[in-house]
Amino acid sequence: MKHLLELRSLTVDQINAILERAEYFQQNHATITPTLQKFFVANLFFEPSTRTRFSFEMAERRLGAEVLNFAEVSSSRVKGETIYDTIKTLESMGVDAAVIRTTENNLLNDLQEKVNLRLINAGAGHREHPTQALLDVLTMKEQFGQIEGLTVGIIGDITHSRVAGSHMHLIPRLGAKLMLAGAEGMVERPLDPIPDGIQLSTVDDIVKEADVVMMLRIQHERHTRLMQMSVNEYHQEYGLTLDRAKRMKPNAVIMHPAPINRGVEIDTNLVEAENSLINRQVRNGLFTRMAVLEILLKGDKNEQLFDTRRSGGEFCTV
Amino acid sequence: MKHLLELRSLTVDQINAILERAEYFQQNHATITPTLQKFFVANLFFEPSTRTRFSFEMAERRLGAEVLNFAEVSSSRVKGETIYDTIKTLESMGVDAAVIRTTENNLLNDLQEKVNLRLINAGAGHREHPTQALLDVLTMKEQFGQIEGLTVGIIGDITHSRVAGSHMHLIPRLGAKLMLAGAEGMVERPLDPIPDGIQLSTVDDIVKEADVVMMLRIQHERHTRLMQMSVNEYHQEYGLTLDRAKRMKPNAVIMHPAPINRGVEIDTNLVEAENSLINRQVRNGLFTRMAVLEILLKGDKNEQLFDTRRSGGEFCTV
Amino acid sequence: MKHLLELRSLTVDQINAILERAEYFQQNHATITPTLQKFFVANLFFEPSTRTRFSFEMAERRLGAEVLNFAEVSSSRVKGETIYDTIKTLESMGVDAAVIRTTENNLLNDLQEKVNLRLINAGAGHREHPTQALLDVLTMKEQFGQIEGLTVGIIGDITHSRVAGSHMHLIPRLGAKLMLAGAEGMVERPLDPIPDGIQLSTVDDIVKEADVVMMLRIQHERHTRLMQMSVNEYHQEYGLTLDRAKRMKPNAVIMHPAPINRGVEIDTNLVEAENSLINRQVRNGLFTRMAVLEILLKGDKNEQLFDTRRSGGEFCTV
Repeated sequence: MKHLLELRSLTVDQINAILERAEYFQQNHATITPTLQKFFVANLFFEPSTRTRFSFEMAERRLGAEVLNFAEVSSSRVKGETIYDTIKTLESMGVDAAVIRTTENNLLNDLQEKVNLRLINAGAGHREHPTQALLDVLTMKEQFGQIEGLTVGIIGDITHSRVAGSHMHLIPRLGAKLMLAGAEGMVERPLDPIPDGIQLSTVDDIVKEADVVMMLRIQHERHTRLMQMSVNEYHQEYGLTLDRAKRMKPNAVIMHPAPINRGVEIDTNLVEAENSLINRQVRNGLFTRMAVLEILLKGDKNEQLFDTRRSGGEFCTV
Repeated sequence: MKHLLELRSLTVDQINAILERAEYFQQNHATITPTLQKFFVANLFFEPSTRTRFSFEMAERRLGAEVLNFAEVSSSRVKGETIYDTIKTLESMGVDAAVIRTTENNLLNDLQEKVNLRLINAGAGHREHPTQALLDVLTMKEQFGQIEGLTVGIIGDITHSRVAGSHMHLIPRLGAKLMLAGAEGMVERPLDPIPDGIQLSTVDDIVKEADVVMMLRIQHERHTRLMQMSVNEYHQEYGLTLDRAKRMKPNAVIMHPAPINRGVEIDTNLVEAENSLINRQVRNGLFTRMAVLEILLKGDKNEQLFDTRRSGGEFCTV
Repeated sequence: MKHLLELRSLTVDQINAILERAEYFQQNHATITPTLQKFFVANLFFEPSTRTRFSFEMAERRLGAEVLNFAEVSSSRVKGETIYDTIKTLESMGVDAAVIRTTENNLLNDLQEKVNLRLINAGAGHREHPTQALLDVLTMKEQFGQIEGLTVGIIGDITHSRVAGSHMHLIPRLGAKLMLAGAEGMVERPLDPIPDGIQLSTVDDIVKEADVVMMLRIQHERHTRLMQMSVNEYHQEYGLTLDRAKRMKPNAVIMHPAPINRGVEIDTNLVEAENSLINRQVRNGLFTRMAVLEILLKGDKNEQLFDTRRSGGEFCTV
């Protein structure tokens, strides 16, 4: 594994290796584990982001890496430099990994063969957001003990959600059932034929059947206008209302990749409800990103690291 | 003390504990004191700032903390996320303290009961700017040996100044007299009844009587237009001119929280005059913020730290 | 040497001291050399930049310094603070060096006598960009073994290029010949009389005679409009086309300070050609900036450091 660009091209073994390492950090999160000391990681966010950028930055620092942050507004991209040239520049300087968020779907795939530093997709267009999907699964595993046999429902703008884009290649492969629902025009991914393990459904069927009800953020300015619907009408028809939440299964949980529009896709009182895992998702994001960074940057050494860990020995910092 | 939001809700003992620790750093400032190693501090500045942000960042780094910076323009606030959700996200990630500057007066007070990480007010609307007022007092103490018995005059837009907002709850409680003056419309804080130790006055009386003449920055674009006055007219009527400076008491000093508008509220030649403490204020800002951060984050341990220090022993890094 | 503002005011010995130290880092670049631990360096970029800012930041971190970044948009410069006051503030806080990029030609020269922290010019108006010129020369030395006797041609907007501005005071003094060419209006520096070792020439003569063909970025939006020329016409007339590249001398190399406009001043296929040193320039930028920072900040100690190094001993971290 050189880069982490999309879950669709990882094997289930690779996915499990990341989750296993993330669980290690989840259980040993009290201290900094400086296995990436002297590694340089650049965060290049070409789209606004607070939580994902901070989550990556904390993961990098907890591993002891040196962190460089790039804000598009103050960069030479305004001078018309291509992103490829930017990445090659970083590579020539000795940057070891670039964490990239971009509006463009295929940018990272186009780069992957041409660069030697590690690329990590922190959200690409509406294609994939692999670390988000992995942290979601880590959170489900923490809650339910295993993924196999679960029913996971995602409600919202499936078509434009990179989170949903990643989950379609993750949840069914881990043995869970994936149900998708959204307003008209929101569930039109090219799913022909619909893969095994994925089912198009309705908001109310998901609420009734799912162990995990995952709500996606709605860009309400855009959507409610397009659908000629008020925010409140959207909330009643497609949101997780208090009333719907009562109809969830007894042990079912609420998830959301955030940022949240309170009162739009989810009732504000549900965000921190007993059965909401939203804050735990954030916490697990840290461990997931630590795992991804360490595996990509330490390469073969990881096997040894894993062995050390498995044998119960003290984790060696390198 | 969990947060540092406003001086009005601190006891005099708490204020003195901060000043005492700041004096320790003032006298031992040659090296990094890494008592906050493995602590994560996020700087969230929702308003432009150079000096305060850098001052906090240097304070954090000199204590060995890991620093995360947030620039509003590249954040998901543009997606409509509430600040509460942002803070909870940081908390879930393991951020230990958030240093916040905001235009909103009551934001931090509204948050304080709901979050577990430490909140530090780095300037909130026109309500309070507690670390600025504390560093001012630290500077006065360095200069005069004690605060008790001093006469401090603040000249400028008292109504909209968060620095003045903090000083009104600090200077009189430390036994000094506070005189306030400004142009029409600039001294209209709800001071009814005016507390003991505070006196509304005139620019010229302050210049004549005060041991400390503190000039506030005037947002001259706004004010001179409102007052239909040229910048020069303002300077002559309400600024610290060379002529007024000559009428100050022999040992009186000039202070300014900066940034400075040279030639508006203060003559450019006075900024670095013999009796100007402006650069020392900046230097003391560092020590004050180190003290606040350490006390909030090390909690009970501080007493032990203070004891170690008091007994003259080497300060132990933790 | 207190600041690094412009090459024109350095002696050849000082230039060689920087290059020598940079070569040390070039040959020992595997690890962090924390000679600047506990030093604070502020990067103040008042103009957009990716590569130079990242290069300085990596240099600072590889020397173990604490790094503060300033982005103009989120700073109090919008409040009208002068740059002098900003620098004095940083100085009072304990910042040891400021790396500054600015649009203004004379800003740094005006500041140099007034401040105690070290100033490093990271690109000033169209006057000088000293670290870029030094890294270019380091790259030539790496390639050819020595600078003396080389012929270096620079093609592009000489008049407005701060890189060319620095090279005019560097290349001839190191014993190489400097040829300059560009479109009409692009080679109008005050070169009267033209100094020894500099020759105004043509694109094709440079291509034919030079050991180093250095292309400058063209601000094509501005220039092609001014010259009423299409981008393609500019490329054919003044750019390094594939055809011209074939006419270069057998061992001649291509250089470019970047960022590059592919297809404008240089054919896209030449950017990473066998004889292109562009990526090595980026890599050497790191070592050059490490050398500059260390020499300015460690002062006299450097001689001892150099001696330690020369005697083959282990380089001592301080």
